[in-house]
Amino acid sequence: MSVLKNDSYIRALLRQPVERTPVWMMRQAGRYLPEYRALREKAGDFMAVCTNPELACEVTMQPLRRFDLDAAILFSDILTIPDAMGLGLHFETGEGPRFERTIQSVADVVNLPIPDPEQELRYVMDAVRTIRRELNGDVPLIGFSGSPWTLATYMIEGGSSKTFSKIKKMAFCEPEVLHMLLDKLADSVILYLNAQIAAGAQAVQIFDTWGGILTPRDYKEYSLYYMDKIVKGLTREYEGNPVPVTLFTKNGGMWIEDIAATGCDAIGIDWTIDMGNARKRVGDKVALQGNMDPAVLHADPDRIRQEVQIILDSYGQGPGHVFNLGHGITPDVAPENAGVFIDAVHELSMAYHLFD
Amino acid sequence: MSVLKNDSYIRALLRQPVERTPVWMMRQAGRYLPEYRALREKAGDFMAVCTNPELACEVTMQPLRRFDLDAAILFSDILTIPDAMGLGLHFETGEGPRFERTIQSVADVVNLPIPDPEQELRYVMDAVRTIRRELNGDVPLIGFSGSPWTLATYMIEGGSSKTFSKIKKMAFCEPEVLHMLLDKLADSVILYLNAQIAAGAQAVQIFDTWGGILTPRDYKEYSLYYMDKIVKGLTREYEGNPVPVTLFTKNGGMWIEDIAATGCDAIGIDWTIDMGNARKRVGDKVALQGNMDPAVLHADPDRIRQEVQIILDSYGQGPGHVFNLGHGITPDVAPENAGVFIDAVHELSMAYHLFD
Repeated sequence: MSVLKNDSYIRALLRQPVERTPVWMMRQAGRYLPEYRALREKAGDFMAVCTNPELACEVTMQPLRRFDLDAAILFSDILTIPDAMGLGLHFETGEGPRFERTIQSVADVVNLPIPDPEQELRYVMDAVRTIRRELNGDVPLIGFSGSPWTLATYMIEGGSSKTFSKIKKMAFCEPEVLHMLLDKLADSVILYLNAQIAAGAQAVQIFDTWGGILTPRDYKEYSLYYMDKIVKGLTREYEGNPVPVTLFTKNGGMWIEDIAATGCDAIGIDWTIDMGNARKRVGDKVALQGNMDPAVLHADPDRIRQEVQIILDSYGQGPGHVFNLGHGITPDVAPENAGVFIDAVHELSMAYHLFD
Repeated sequence: MSVLKNDSYIRALLRQPVERTPVWMMRQAGRYLPEYRALREKAGDFMAVCTNPELACEVTMQPLRRFDLDAAILFSDILTIPDAMGLGLHFETGEGPRFERTIQSVADVVNLPIPDPEQELRYVMDAVRTIRRELNGDVPLIGFSGSPWTLATYMIEGGSSKTFSKIKKMAFCEPEVLHMLLDKLADSVILYLNAQIAAGAQAVQIFDTWGGILTPRDYKEYSLYYMDKIVKGLTREYEGNPVPVTLFTKNGGMWIEDIAATGCDAIGIDWTIDMGNARKRVGDKVALQGNMDPAVLHADPDRIRQEVQIILDSYGQGPGHVFNLGHGITPDVAPENAGVFIDAVHELSMAYHLFD
């Protein structure tokens, strides 16, 4: 049984007392760091880093050497599962992810294999094991996956989309085919995240980047239903330690009551919803993670601290808050500003945990 | 004083009784229509049509010849004001709008002229007058503008953006410069919309395409504040007829109580919020416009009718609903499906107005 030197991230997700609000940043290992850009220049493309456990570990550790972060997150991509299913993931510069092959028919769905995490996704599990050794219990390691709906958007559209016409057309014209795909993806995500947990991930997060483009009804039917299935299929305790699960639907602020009803431990929220309002709505059912606009990191140190204060104050006294950005840190942010942000969270949050 | 043959759109916006729910579609004059594509091929680029009153009128009328629409909307762009300010609007294929010159400094803002609608934007006013003659009182004509915040995003970023880093950086580092710009834009929009009303627009809508990327606090400070100023500065009655004003913030579903508090007549909502829930929240303060996912128009006729029924039922009995898509109709929709949609609204909505 592992003992963490700093378990404040896990405690906050479980709504247990902490001394200060834990903080990490989505995409904390990434292009805003010169050491990341240097490694990428040598290593080649994004997937070359993801698929090499030593490099993935190195990149995961980079932000932890600079900043007083309360969690590490596996360096990987949300689209590893469809890649392992044989769709051929690649990244075009400035274009985002693309798949060589897409899903268009029921036959395409039937023929999709469910990947064995310790076979086709072995590189991810090896990265988890390598990072855990390297972390040496300093802070917990977060594992993750894309949500079934979000994976399906890329698999059907072939990449990013503005209108999501293809997948929505399938939802309206062949809902049974889409449901078959989503169910297969949910099963794959359950296997994948449970394998990450067995390999050493101490918490997991599901990124539902595109759930927010749906109607409330379609969100429940096509995205939340399958995240709910995953929550219920996950190993929520491993070697005596609880393994918290966080669901994050971008632009999902209107649906947090429904998300909380899945029984997840925490909900990630973006910046379009007020933290205090979100807390009122979910009560003591779940912890909340968020929710500073990443663009605030372009401001000067005083303004960054001010924004941290506003969000801490909006959440208010007591446990259950993991501080984060509402989305990934952008490549044009100065690393010093990320440091100002993280230190501000730790310093200013102590006053909110005096009675935890 | 003009008498409209079909004034159901105006009546619905004013929450007055109607026999059936009126319907129009954002971008109803557009690329999904072969006759529009044919005209564009002859006329040249998008702005060549906008700036020619005869062509703008022809394009405005095209969907009315095909469908039983309850309103016409001026064919124009949301970015005419910054173009008239001298920023040089152009459209690159597949790229969306771009400006040749952008706003970067306080000097840029100070030097921006406020356009005289009957001078620099005369082509818009001429189009309004031409369309009104051509409509001959059949249905009302909607005039429109972009919101100050939305105009400012394009003026500062130079075009569309994923992260809106530049304008947000200005909001955090030089808020007084951004406020000066937004105030100038609000004044320009007031002049522009009042001139459209004087030229014959019988209702106006403000499109706040990008308000939804802000935090709730920043939305109020940078977007809603200036729409509120516009609502209060508009000619709400012209030649004895009320001129309703509709505010539409994409992804603004969480803030509709605040939007209603401006005193606007109606709020446009996208499809990420349930119509019945929205009605409950705004009560009898405003009418609601929306809110079908445009992607439903890819479905078969039965599914389209089913979706119309769900939304009518969600709004429920009584006046105050203008049916619309939650965003513009997309170029890949079959025109027949738009017809199915419009007829379904008229046919199925009668049962909801028996006691109006």
